[in-house]
Amino acid sequence: MAYKTEKHILSLIVENQPGVLSRIVGLFSGRGFNIESLCVAETAEADISRITLVTLGDMDIIEQIKKQLNKLINVIKVIDLTHRPFVARDMALIKVRARPENRAEILRMVDIFRARVVDVGALFYTVEVIGDLEKIRSLINLLTPMGIKEVARTGTIALPRELKKRSK
Amino acid sequence: MAYKTEKHILSLIVENQPGVLSRIVGLFSGRGFNIESLCVAETAEADISRITLVTLGDMDIIEQIKKQLNKLINVIKVIDLTHRPFVARDMALIKVRARPENRAEILRMVDIFRARVVDVGALFYTVEVIGDLEKIRSLINLLTPMGIKEVARTGTIALPRELKKRSK
Repeated sequence: MAYKTEKHILSLIVENQPGVLSRIVGLFSGRGFNIESLCVAETAEADISRITLVTLGDMDIIEQIKKQLNKLINVIKVIDLTHRPFVARDMALIKVRARPENRAEILRMVDIFRARVVDVGALFYTVEVIGDLEKIRSLINLLTPMGIKEVARTGTIALPRELKKRSK
Repeated sequence: MAYKTEKHILSLIVENQPGVLSRIVGLFSGRGFNIESLCVAETAEADISRITLVTLGDMDIIEQIKKQLNKLINVIKVIDLTHRPFVARDMALIKVRARPENRAEILRMVDIFRARVVDVGALFYTVEVIGDLEKIRSLINLLTPMGIKEVARTGTIALPRELKKRSK
């Protein structure tokens, strides 16, 4: 019961100082915890960054890590989105081999996934796709038989959902 | 001459093992180097991840860091995109206060920036926007007077552009 493994999305608000990211990532690797994805970038304020981190792990160990994260210098806030409603997005750039006979099919898939071709070379198309992890994995799987050269994914970013009630 | 500071986009292909990210990030913080943004996520292969890292620094120090990154265990490849053509994208989720009198203006900006409203609460809209860093900063600046509650940014991902020559 106590050892339920599940996916956690943590959102950390931190001061934008050298060393913060290193200390945070070190807390996870020190326990042999793999980080599935991580995004870090400044927020609306240049001196404050937000780190969105996805990890898979036992709930009680995550609780320990959260406590330690809260104690770290330069960490302003730790938000665990796991058990509350949130909006999440992933983005990927996928460079796929575009043989003349495959081009119509690639464009069809791009259309179905509401993706976009953002670069066209002699032999490759680069496709930008946004969605949840499953959607991105599906498109990668569908394009794999044509030959994927490279993939760059952002990892997940997320914000808590707001209440729907009360209008005006 | 030797000390020219510029923005570097590094793309690292790594084995998806606990500790890799920690060692990489540690190399930067150990030298007091700030990481402007960083994305890490699996590629088309689940056991291989790509890290896209944006940093601002002296060229010769970046060269040293690149050499050390290449020596790290679990680092398969280090690609410096700085001096070659590349496609780059950033994404952000922006939660903005949506007072009734501001809603039309917010939707107008969303339209101009080809952004999308992905969540509507009683008091807030959450907007998804894709583009380069400047575009995202511009939208944040334009929405700031209405009241931004939260921003989550992915940071930059990038892939090298392919040659345009030769068709078929």
